[in-house]
Amino acid sequence: MAWFRRRTRPRPASHHVAPRSEAVAVARVELADLAPAPERFLGQTAYLTIVLFENLGRAVTTAPTTDAKTRLTHAASELLAMHQELVGLLREHHDDPTAQMDPFRLPLDDFQRRTKGADWHEILVTCYLTNGFLLDFFAGLAAGLPRDLADRAAEILQRDKGEEVLVGELRLAIEENPRVASRLAMWGRRLIGDTMLVARSAIEQHGTAADAAAVDERVDPVFTELIAAHTRRMDALGLTA
Amino acid sequence: MAWFRRRTRPRPASHHVAPRSEAVAVARVELADLAPAPERFLGQTAYLTIVLFENLGRAVTTAPTTDAKTRLTHAASELLAMHQELVGLLREHHDDPTAQMDPFRLPLDDFQRRTKGADWHEILVTCYLTNGFLLDFFAGLAAGLPRDLADRAAEILQRDKGEEVLVGELRLAIEENPRVASRLAMWGRRLIGDTMLVARSAIEQHGTAADAAAVDERVDPVFTELIAAHTRRMDALGLTA
Repeated sequence: MAWFRRRTRPRPASHHVAPRSEAVAVARVELADLAPAPERFLGQTAYLTIVLFENLGRAVTTAPTTDAKTRLTHAASELLAMHQELVGLLREHHDDPTAQMDPFRLPLDDFQRRTKGADWHEILVTCYLTNGFLLDFFAGLAAGLPRDLADRAAEILQRDKGEEVLVGELRLAIEENPRVASRLAMWGRRLIGDTMLVARSAIEQHGTAADAAAVDERVDPVFTELIAAHTRRMDALGLTA
Repeated sequence: MAWFRRRTRPRPASHHVAPRSEAVAVARVELADLAPAPERFLGQTAYLTIVLFENLGRAVTTAPTTDAKTRLTHAASELLAMHQELVGLLREHHDDPTAQMDPFRLPLDDFQRRTKGADWHEILVTCYLTNGFLLDFFAGLAAGLPRDLADRAAEILQRDKGEEVLVGELRLAIEENPRVASRLAMWGRRLIGDTMLVARSAIEQHGTAADAAAVDERVDPVFTELIAAHTRRMDALGLTA
């Protein structure tokens, strides 16, 4: 995939919930007809939000101050609420939530292992960058779901991800010890490959090579925008992407 | 402390929120005038609920099935909500939540380390038994707080602790492999000492040895009842306390 080749092909954004970020807006337009079946989308995002919650749980546990701990609990709550509401949507859709999440368990547990982070600061960077990238991506992809579900899933996935506390703690750490910055910049760059693979795996696969190439062409501008958002997140920490 | 010596000295229970368990009811009556200052009570319970949440987070992370993971997230949410509401009460009371929680950090982190558990089943037993014991204890102790705060704190601490899912998973594991039972029974017995010390540390200390003995006398029936509740929890798993 040539993710960095920029294309523009405007398509009408068709849904009500206003996108919070440019990356979400572009994903909505470009991926509108590439969304997986609803139960697949919900199964993957429901399991993903457990994984992102677990990462935040480790951030709470390893936090070096009571203040950081208690502030991070809010971000953990948000992810748990997202998970529970996505499971609720699966139930409304008459699906067994566990059966729909199970196929995503191995790849997402593997993603978690590879993006785990060696200490508190790396864990925070993982939470900040992978939550931002993946929740933006899936919020955009949600536009391709049946209308009512699209709005509800997008609303859930675009909620506050606790970025403020993650950025605040990371900035503080980098100010206190500038040598941390280069290590975290490297960690941020390492995360992006695994994170993109999770996003790409969500898009409906088509039969022929020509179809696959056509899908890649549609996905390119979305990844370009998601990477631009990733770069802005790194900038917010004063790190080079 | 002679925790097993039973005494009865009825005192009027003075508060509105109906106690969910006999242990809470006895603690209310006996400890009515031994509650610590409100900011101390709230600081300790606010930090405690972080610790209990972290234990549940580890249970989610180490759960061997998607079904167990997603069911345990509800218990984790409950503990996070308790934590946030206790922090909210500290704020209403014009206290800096961090400053009030900080004195409890070292002892409660130490409690967490000593009750950590070596695998998923031990982690579940820790969550089930320590959450049950300590939240019952503090819900009872809350009766000694100023009236309005007493009701609100008791209501928060008596909410569902996710016992159903913890018991369900543990019963399943014990049925599947009866050899697990004796190991978990031993683990359950080991937990109780550390758990009682956390509870005892919450009670206001008095100056003289005679005062301390008088306090112990008051505390005895409460611990007797809490230990009876602990035994019932072990029974519910088919384990001998």
